[in-house]
Amino acid sequence: MPRVVVDVMPKPEILDPQGKAVLGALPRLGFSGITDVRQGKRFELEFEGELTEETLAEVRKMAETLLSNPVIEDFTVSVETPVAAVEAVE
Amino acid sequence: MPRVVVDVMPKPEILDPQGKAVLGALPRLGFSGITDVRQGKRFELEFEGELTEETLAEVRKMAETLLSNPVIEDFTVSVETPVAAVEAVE
Repeated sequence: MPRVVVDVMPKPEILDPQGKAVLGALPRLGFSGITDVRQGKRFELEFEGELTEETLAEVRKMAETLLSNPVIEDFTVSVETPVAAVEAVE
Repeated sequence: MPRVVVDVMPKPEILDPQGKAVLGALPRLGFSGITDVRQGKRFELEFEGELTEETLAEVRKMAETLLSNPVIEDFTVSVETPVAAVEAVE
């Protein structure tokens, strides 16, 4: 079953309080060497049937309208799927 | 600057109300063909200097203790970084 992953991250110019909280907690827990942390969301979508270019276009539309807020967030769409299904896309 | 990505997802046997809410909203918005949605978190960690095996072991410990709740969540650690830095890891 093909799986499509949508990663949604805050835009670089947007403050990210969750990421800052993690960054602030790291030294207290004994971790060092990290200069920045950004926290975002990951969606895993399971599809039935074959993945086509149209389906991927739909996912991009979905990511733009439902899964992310394009004013403050960027998203990337990637396919994570068995080889047979990847070939079906091409 | 090397970047390490930690993806945290709810375990398959754990209910995922956020994912279910997205799944329920899709048909109302005119999207079809999706059988399941899982929502998780994505952390992007920026490191200074080179990435070593020890650093990656630290990140795994960090993911287990701070970034995820291992009772209900699984995590994966991956390196997303320029080629030179990847070579330094090997």
